[in-house]
Amino acid sequence: MKNTEHLVKGDIESMERRTRTQLINSLSGFKSINLCGTISKEGVTNLSLISSVVHIGANPALMGFIMRPVTVRRDTYNNILETGHYTFNHLNEAIFKKAHQTSARYPVETSEFEAAELTEIYSEVMKAPYVQESHIRIGLEFVEKIPIPVNGTLLMIGKVTEIFFPKNCWLADGYLDIEKAGSITTSSLDTYHRTQKIARLSYAKADRMIKEI
Amino acid sequence: MKNTEHLVKGDIESMERRTRTQLINSLSGFKSINLCGTISKEGVTNLSLISSVVHIGANPALMGFIMRPVTVRRDTYNNILETGHYTFNHLNEAIFKKAHQTSARYPVETSEFEAAELTEIYSEVMKAPYVQESHIRIGLEFVEKIPIPVNGTLLMIGKVTEIFFPKNCWLADGYLDIEKAGSITTSSLDTYHRTQKIARLSYAKADRMIKEI
Repeated sequence: MKNTEHLVKGDIESMERRTRTQLINSLSGFKSINLCGTISKEGVTNLSLISSVVHIGANPALMGFIMRPVTVRRDTYNNILETGHYTFNHLNEAIFKKAHQTSARYPVETSEFEAAELTEIYSEVMKAPYVQESHIRIGLEFVEKIPIPVNGTLLMIGKVTEIFFPKNCWLADGYLDIEKAGSITTSSLDTYHRTQKIARLSYAKADRMIKEI
Repeated sequence: MKNTEHLVKGDIESMERRTRTQLINSLSGFKSINLCGTISKEGVTNLSLISSVVHIGANPALMGFIMRPVTVRRDTYNNILETGHYTFNHLNEAIFKKAHQTSARYPVETSEFEAAELTEIYSEVMKAPYVQESHIRIGLEFVEKIPIPVNGTLLMIGKVTEIFFPKNCWLADGYLDIEKAGSITTSSLDTYHRTQKIARLSYAKADRMIKEI
């Protein structure tokens, strides 16, 4: 079809590096976007922007994210290994620019909370800081890091041990209305989107068509 | 704060199973939603709905997804191992109900393409079928499966070897406008959302504030 772009392996491999990075980062679809809060054993807090958080399981409650190769300094990685704790904090429209700013390369002694003018708060059970301006905040205990041999990245797995969210966004069946809570989504590396619910659908069965609930 | 729900480990662990499943599946944030197309060595095609696709790397171009424990029949898993090929096909508003229907439990000899009235098409290089009604279609070669010990799931890694997308959605710098292409996003297990772009932001540097581009 003449309006469809068709790329094959050679096209992808020979693409200019930054062009390919933008394209391939777009391909997975819309992504979650979280600020990961950590603290070093010296007490310096850190924030990093993570778009690779993925659901691993509900029982036990586990979440994963992809860590790039630790061939350079990775404060988030070091802090998680040192303290065993980290937090995920959903982005919303009021803080997405500040959150994006945390992806700049700051010196190790600089807290991204301060650099981006976000507020750190603590709970009684987690060593790692939360982002006060975030409406959905999750505390995790580090479980394991799993090497991905093909490109040297790591899958970092954590157990959900604490959750904060707006009371009026939680439905009786357990569904958390993250759109109502103001959470946003991202595409590729640098683009942010709000959402608008289309429908919630019933559990699919082979002998009937699904319907809106 | 009285309007904030606060759950700790014991609350999460003692929650009714389906309630916890809905809640924990909401926590990662908005998710990509793809139909995964495969074919068995007997030639039976299969579609499965996957909300765990994650970017692994751009050079080489790699994508991952989480496969639940293969303690029961998993057609997608078996087909990927048998043929080495699979496709990801972005959902859009015209097909999300049909796509959701594919998550019903059909007999192994039933193609979800037929059950959900979606159209299979093939390229010259991939054994696995694509979904014609999808606007962004990705062909992958299986690379490796990585066990996640803590709960028996698997991280399935594939190399992007073919891409189809609308020509008018691709910007000169490589960014693929998946919103313009009609791709949608999902939350928890059963809710679908369209998106509305807020802004695209410049690359963050420590010595200046980011801006819209």
